[in-house]
Amino acid sequence: MLIVMQSKATPEQVQSICERIESFGFRAHPIEGTQHFAVAVTGDLRGIETCGLEEMPGVQEIVRISKPYKLAGRESKPENTVVRFANSDVTIGGDEFAIIAGPCSVESREQTLHIAEKVAASGARFFRGGAYKPRTSPYAFQGMGVEGLKILAEARERTGMLIVTEAVDIEALEAIEDYADMIQIGARNMQNFSLLKRAGRSPLPVLLKRGLSATLEELLMSAEYIMSEGNRNVVLCERGIRTFADHSRNTLDLSVIPAVHKLSHLPILSDPSHGTGKRDRVTPLALASAAVGADGLIVEVHHDPERALSDGPQSMFPEQFANMVSQLRGILPVVKRTLSTEPLKPRPAATQAACK
Amino acid sequence: MLIVMQSKATPEQVQSICERIESFGFRAHPIEGTQHFAVAVTGDLRGIETCGLEEMPGVQEIVRISKPYKLAGRESKPENTVVRFANSDVTIGGDEFAIIAGPCSVESREQTLHIAEKVAASGARFFRGGAYKPRTSPYAFQGMGVEGLKILAEARERTGMLIVTEAVDIEALEAIEDYADMIQIGARNMQNFSLLKRAGRSPLPVLLKRGLSATLEELLMSAEYIMSEGNRNVVLCERGIRTFADHSRNTLDLSVIPAVHKLSHLPILSDPSHGTGKRDRVTPLALASAAVGADGLIVEVHHDPERALSDGPQSMFPEQFANMVSQLRGILPVVKRTLSTEPLKPRPAATQAACK
Amino acid sequence: MLIVMQSKATPEQVQSICERIESFGFRAHPIEGTQHFAVAVTGDLRGIETCGLEEMPGVQEIVRISKPYKLAGRESKPENTVVRFANSDVTIGGDEFAIIAGPCSVESREQTLHIAEKVAASGARFFRGGAYKPRTSPYAFQGMGVEGLKILAEARERTGMLIVTEAVDIEALEAIEDYADMIQIGARNMQNFSLLKRAGRSPLPVLLKRGLSATLEELLMSAEYIMSEGNRNVVLCERGIRTFADHSRNTLDLSVIPAVHKLSHLPILSDPSHGTGKRDRVTPLALASAAVGADGLIVEVHHDPERALSDGPQSMFPEQFANMVSQLRGILPVVKRTLSTEPLKPRPAATQAACK
Amino acid sequence: MLIVMQSKATPEQVQSICERIESFGFRAHPIEGTQHFAVAVTGDLRGIETCGLEEMPGVQEIVRISKPYKLAGRESKPENTVVRFANSDVTIGGDEFAIIAGPCSVESREQTLHIAEKVAASGARFFRGGAYKPRTSPYAFQGMGVEGLKILAEARERTGMLIVTEAVDIEALEAIEDYADMIQIGARNMQNFSLLKRAGRSPLPVLLKRGLSATLEELLMSAEYIMSEGNRNVVLCERGIRTFADHSRNTLDLSVIPAVHKLSHLPILSDPSHGTGKRDRVTPLALASAAVGADGLIVEVHHDPERALSDGPQSMFPEQFANMVSQLRGILPVVKRTLSTEPLKPRPAATQAACK
Repeated sequence: MLIVMQSKATPEQVQSICERIESFGFRAHPIEGTQHFAVAVTGDLRGIETCGLEEMPGVQEIVRISKPYKLAGRESKPENTVVRFANSDVTIGGDEFAIIAGPCSVESREQTLHIAEKVAASGARFFRGGAYKPRTSPYAFQGMGVEGLKILAEARERTGMLIVTEAVDIEALEAIEDYADMIQIGARNMQNFSLLKRAGRSPLPVLLKRGLSATLEELLMSAEYIMSEGNRNVVLCERGIRTFADHSRNTLDLSVIPAVHKLSHLPILSDPSHGTGKRDRVTPLALASAAVGADGLIVEVHHDPERALSDGPQSMFPEQFANMVSQLRGILPVVKRTLSTEPLKPRPAATQAACK
Repeated sequence: MLIVMQSKATPEQVQSICERIESFGFRAHPIEGTQHFAVAVTGDLRGIETCGLEEMPGVQEIVRISKPYKLAGRESKPENTVVRFANSDVTIGGDEFAIIAGPCSVESREQTLHIAEKVAASGARFFRGGAYKPRTSPYAFQGMGVEGLKILAEARERTGMLIVTEAVDIEALEAIEDYADMIQIGARNMQNFSLLKRAGRSPLPVLLKRGLSATLEELLMSAEYIMSEGNRNVVLCERGIRTFADHSRNTLDLSVIPAVHKLSHLPILSDPSHGTGKRDRVTPLALASAAVGADGLIVEVHHDPERALSDGPQSMFPEQFANMVSQLRGILPVVKRTLSTEPLKPRPAATQAACK
Repeated sequence: MLIVMQSKATPEQVQSICERIESFGFRAHPIEGTQHFAVAVTGDLRGIETCGLEEMPGVQEIVRISKPYKLAGRESKPENTVVRFANSDVTIGGDEFAIIAGPCSVESREQTLHIAEKVAASGARFFRGGAYKPRTSPYAFQGMGVEGLKILAEARERTGMLIVTEAVDIEALEAIEDYADMIQIGARNMQNFSLLKRAGRSPLPVLLKRGLSATLEELLMSAEYIMSEGNRNVVLCERGIRTFADHSRNTLDLSVIPAVHKLSHLPILSDPSHGTGKRDRVTPLALASAAVGADGLIVEVHHDPERALSDGPQSMFPEQFANMVSQLRGILPVVKRTLSTEPLKPRPAATQAACK
Repeated sequence: MLIVMQSKATPEQVQSICERIESFGFRAHPIEGTQHFAVAVTGDLRGIETCGLEEMPGVQEIVRISKPYKLAGRESKPENTVVRFANSDVTIGGDEFAIIAGPCSVESREQTLHIAEKVAASGARFFRGGAYKPRTSPYAFQGMGVEGLKILAEARERTGMLIVTEAVDIEALEAIEDYADMIQIGARNMQNFSLLKRAGRSPLPVLLKRGLSATLEELLMSAEYIMSEGNRNVVLCERGIRTFADHSRNTLDLSVIPAVHKLSHLPILSDPSHGTGKRDRVTPLALASAAVGADGLIVEVHHDPERALSDGPQSMFPEQFANMVSQLRGILPVVKRTLSTEPLKPRPAATQAACK
């Protein structure tokens, strides 16, 4: 931390800042400049506030240097986190590029199983589908709830894909733990700290989406909430930020992906479906996500988007998804990633509980 | 809703769009332009999706005209909502300008009661103070919980001010209902729809803060969530949005205040403390908020911000608060608002329960 | 400047950074922290780059502390700049609140003189009107050019108001010098450095509008371009920034006004017409601008906005302008500003040249 | 254009709107909805204003449908524009992926020729280097001017690469026409309409960079300014937009690339150097740019960035550039682009003039 004094600050004020700093157990290093005095502060400052120093007479500005996250930062764990799943050799964050695909919402057993067969055949290893939907309007479809979770579990049984689904609150999270393999925390809940803490006590890995206006530091601090409760299996996800640009539903911030890899050991996926909001933009942005170094993708696929109960305009057709995967196979070797072509095996129902 | 067809769309495609529209029970009005066909759709479209029309062949773009909110909109209720409180003649949204003041967090009984006496003496009618704190870092002070609520109730008893405090989750909300007079939903939870629905079943009025990247329509839709569950006593609050500007913690968007007044009957307050993040900016932005037509203010006040456990740099000193109120008295008559000078009376403990 | 070293940086790397710094004539102060080394740099660093230090082995991050502006900063000139005009006792930046009003464009002699009479009668001291218009579309009206300037000069002669008009390029600026009293540099040209330098060699004061995505530091650096060429009569202007918010044409950032007053001695006006883009928002935001401490306003007024060739929807009617001024008279005393009620006297043509 | 009437608008007001519309030579189509009347307007509305209709009694909102650009839009020219250069078979916008590389600034003959040899050897077909520099600070290096242009021309002569360099004003543009092959208009000048018009009368192709807060429509309208003066050889360039995200100098908006390809026939490049501001992010974002479908790249390369006079931190080393090109060769076939491996031939000086 660096405390910049006003140019008119007196030596007594500098002295008194130094004493306050030392009283907290840190070390103060006064520096005399041509215009200003400054005081550098050393010690383990992570996670602490500015201790009211900004309030002291003569202080102009406080510049924080230390990162406030501990567990999520690469300094505390230099090697990449590879998330593993019970009863499965599928991973996220390792050499294999992870593909999560499926409809926005679970709408019916028939629709869900139909899409699941399609995406599994094209190479998806994970199946997504919302049983609990956060919707801007209270009058819009809010999801099938536990019935939807049961349909997802059946999709796993038939196709062998692992199930990723969103928890909109603690009650939903607890139901999800009984049926799914990975809990998604959506962008709107990225700073729902009660939900993050509960996810931190879950045995399931967590897919944490970046909020629409979250900085990278805030995203890592939300991961820190989960990790500080004991769950270290956190996968981040870029899904578009809110900017002035109006040609796209959101602005997919692909430069955050190498930035996460530099600062953190956690994997990060890209969601080009929400990032663009338009079906015909999903493939180009998916290829770009692979090229920029993402650890995988999460995309929406629907065989009949005209009739989808949510997010129709951004859902790909199954054939588009298959083409996208085939183009990805051309790009992944350049960034040293693999994408298995081996077909999945159906998973007997008995493995559902074990996924915990 | 207006459906703009591609310039190369065929008459058959237009015909088929019209049939689909009529099949939903709406009316289709085809319009032939020089470059494009378009189809206007009439009927009660509020709250519905685009029904997959975007997916149909020949469609270029869909332009929504109807507002998706019903209860929050001024069309459904032209007169202003005036929020009233049990056992009190204080209001929000009427002629009287509402001032909510107090510390960011309840830190101790002594600190809380001290600040409460100060702000009540200067003209605050509502007292704020967080017992449950949403903090970016899991390592920062998270609030005193129920102990804090008891201290707030004591502050009401002594000063007569009504209590406003934040619910970070459903559990906190239920505790708050036993002690406070108004439930605050913070910016990070503006789209925590489970929490909004629960607030919609509360007997207490709700102060709903705008999210950092929420559009006006999203803010009104979140109010709609609360109102659609039965609670019509919603007060909105502008507290700064996230932009590229770095001279201020957030960008206080004062132009949203007349925009809310035009589209909605709900009152809206301004929070210049979070909006600016800097103590010396609070008074100028508070005066501007009154001048622009806000229904009131919520500000942070602390007698010893150097030692505050949260938000020290943006908390005003009690004397600054008193000066701000005195300057407000000069501005409010210009915008036809009043600010009572009558002292509050202490409220006997028996009225606490009745506030519900 | 503070150079933060990587946690794995070696003592030799720190040493070599220090030597490089000293080789530039600055002083290096190494500081040993618990996680990192850092090196503070002192000396007159204003206006210099980071000298390639970011490139040196072991460096993690460089934090700049010094402000890069010299002439525009309050440290170099603590007292407020009051801009004065030849042959006139009107000022900007002193006690008197400055009001600049008039149409977006000079469209005809009749329209211009009609509006000029109206706004002069209501209290404007400055008249605005574009003779050269920066328009997003090449097919839109581009202004009357020199003919328009002559009409503006006639408006001055008749009403006594001083003339403010926009220079879109150097050629326009040179014509304006022959007719007007103040040169406006528009938001789109805030970083047109060739134009800024030429304005810096003009005898006329300059009204410099903030760009749609300019930080406060960039605005002050553009003022610095003008001032470094010799012209110290610069007035800044906030006119709305571009954000995600869609309820308003731009987001008027009123918190920049106290921020400018803290960092700089230059006056700053507010433009609620461009800031909101909607006529019915101009008065509330104008009152808010006065309350927040702006040194004045620039607003668009048109007696027949339906037929205006540009910016019709944001132009006030003359009666709205008169009402706004009358409400301002209620607010200004609270912020210690005056607004003269004395009528202006017509200015004989001979004073036009002298305005230079 | 669709005019939405207020719910309380009278039939007479609708009638009077229709008459006004017809008086302009357009056709009015009144539509009766359940809540509102609306009036659709047809005719060739491109490039016109709203004609004051927003001002008429009873009007609530005007929704524009037609695009305001003509020449830049794909509707007017469905096939892609391929920009060709005199005395050269290099193109931009065709099958070949275009790579422009070189230092931020021309600093000396030695530095420039050294970098030119390096990037030509690795596969660049175009050489960049600023002889006129737009700098935020008036105290920073402003470029070598005509001396710099002569050095660039020598680099072309030796390596055979075509020269791209920025015009900061009309004077610079005219000098550039004597030496270079392509004129760059920088982001800060994207709406310097006088400069755009002059570029529209140049025989050289123009590289037009997107402004930091420009919408896609504004970018295309700036291209329209150039094209409407006769020059149809315009190449667009995404170079990052300004958002709240602080992990990167700007936010490179790669989703604009497929959006441009949909709406316009003009080619678009990506500038990952300015887009990220950090050397180690340039390669990942360059690969992503190719994968998303960009027509080429412009990147900064410097052999000694520690000593560069501008933009050191974002300049790649020549070896990094060579590696990036080699990775690009892996990705381009997936998006059906080629990248020649044939060495360039030196260009005799006589061809310099002919490039016009």
